[in-house]
Amino acid sequence: MKLELFGLTEIPLVIKGEDIDELILSSLKKQKDSLKNGDIILIAETLISKAEGNYIDLKKINPSSKAKKLAEKSKKDPKLVESIINESKEIIAVGPDFIISETKHGFVCANAGIDESNVEEGLATPMPIDPDKSAKKIYESLKNKTGKNIGVIITDTQGRAFRNGAVGVAIGCIGISPIWKRIGEKDLYGRELQTTEIGVADELAAAASLLMGQANEGVPIVIIRGFENFDKLKNTQSNIKPLIREKEFDVFRN
Amino acid sequence: MKLELFGLTEIPLVIKGEDIDELILSSLKKQKDSLKNGDIILIAETLISKAEGNYIDLKKINPSSKAKKLAEKSKKDPKLVESIINESKEIIAVGPDFIISETKHGFVCANAGIDESNVEEGLATPMPIDPDKSAKKIYESLKNKTGKNIGVIITDTQGRAFRNGAVGVAIGCIGISPIWKRIGEKDLYGRELQTTEIGVADELAAAASLLMGQANEGVPIVIIRGFENFDKLKNTQSNIKPLIREKEFDVFRN
Repeated sequence: MKLELFGLTEIPLVIKGEDIDELILSSLKKQKDSLKNGDIILIAETLISKAEGNYIDLKKINPSSKAKKLAEKSKKDPKLVESIINESKEIIAVGPDFIISETKHGFVCANAGIDESNVEEGLATPMPIDPDKSAKKIYESLKNKTGKNIGVIITDTQGRAFRNGAVGVAIGCIGISPIWKRIGEKDLYGRELQTTEIGVADELAAAASLLMGQANEGVPIVIIRGFENFDKLKNTQSNIKPLIREKEFDVFRN
Repeated sequence: MKLELFGLTEIPLVIKGEDIDELILSSLKKQKDSLKNGDIILIAETLISKAEGNYIDLKKINPSSKAKKLAEKSKKDPKLVESIINESKEIIAVGPDFIISETKHGFVCANAGIDESNVEEGLATPMPIDPDKSAKKIYESLKNKTGKNIGVIITDTQGRAFRNGAVGVAIGCIGISPIWKRIGEKDLYGRELQTTEIGVADELAAAASLLMGQANEGVPIVIIRGFENFDKLKNTQSNIKPLIREKEFDVFRN
């Protein structure tokens, strides 16, 4: 029972059109390694947005009056605020130095997941348009080329309600179920389990984040090897939706 | 750059007065291993509560009228609800099948962290009375016996606002700072970082949870080895407080 995590090194600064699957295979080869059955590949969302050419050119943004008002309240650049509004379904909370919204994908997070780190000055990277689709493209290509059963998870770093500090979370996935449903299972004493849904994709993302860092580490891709529950959780049709709590079940917004 | 996680096996069902530090050392020895500098030891809170003899005997609880009212609303056992009230500073949200409160320690979570899994029928385990103190006792004993620089984290599994599925979180720690402050650091392009506080103890707890499981796996102790930022985060005086968001900064309760 041993779980191993390692980062892919020598990942160049990614440009539009880059094939992430080729990047993964060639980086593994350089490390004299190759994909194994059960490997879970975690990819930072910024890398995906860059490869997909999905940038926001802040200079070209023309802030609306709503954006200007929220910018004043949040002490943020009105152009960035306009972009946050564009990426959001609903603005949930605004205060000095934060804007929390629900993104178009359904994620409740700060700044609609727009990143101004690890991108050229004047540019920002929004979340990938469809992180599940991005994951699927890489997953299918890697499966075709290697024949291995793998998982692919797109990760972000997000703050939490009630706890300080951001942590790695999953925003797209395939090959593995994001939630581990353990309803009906028994504990060591034969009693029904109390906690029956584990956010396993988020736990994998948090683990990978320990290696990725957010600064100049340049480790946007991490492989988790030896996850013994992989076979139980294998799901070639999975996506991130089961991890998103629908607004109607969200006690902190109702 | 490789991170390794492994569970300690052959951990017996722990009873009151058990020395967790001895359990760790003897289990490592059986695996023909020993503590290394930089090892982070993650221990499930249920194990701590059991070793500290910290049980709730539900049969002996006499529910108050407040508990009966909340029990009706939450469809929970009034005796359990009375225990939740006893363990809490403040009840935050109640609905069918959930009670979210702030525990005496300051954690916002469901059921005040009271566990009815992996404990004898009729009993429940509350959170450890002082998880930092529990961690410190084990930490100091292990340091004295081995001379190694280590970290000790007490973990729980908690649900989140906005996301389905529970994940591993830290509720006590020592030897390593729970938050990684990266203020002033630069990204790959030399720009100031945007996300400057990483909840690294929670990421470590989430990673460990991948091995612990919550059912009958019987893996309540996990060691994380090779965390390359350990030296940066080493802190012999640390505790969990920096991870707790104070109510006044909590936008979802104000």
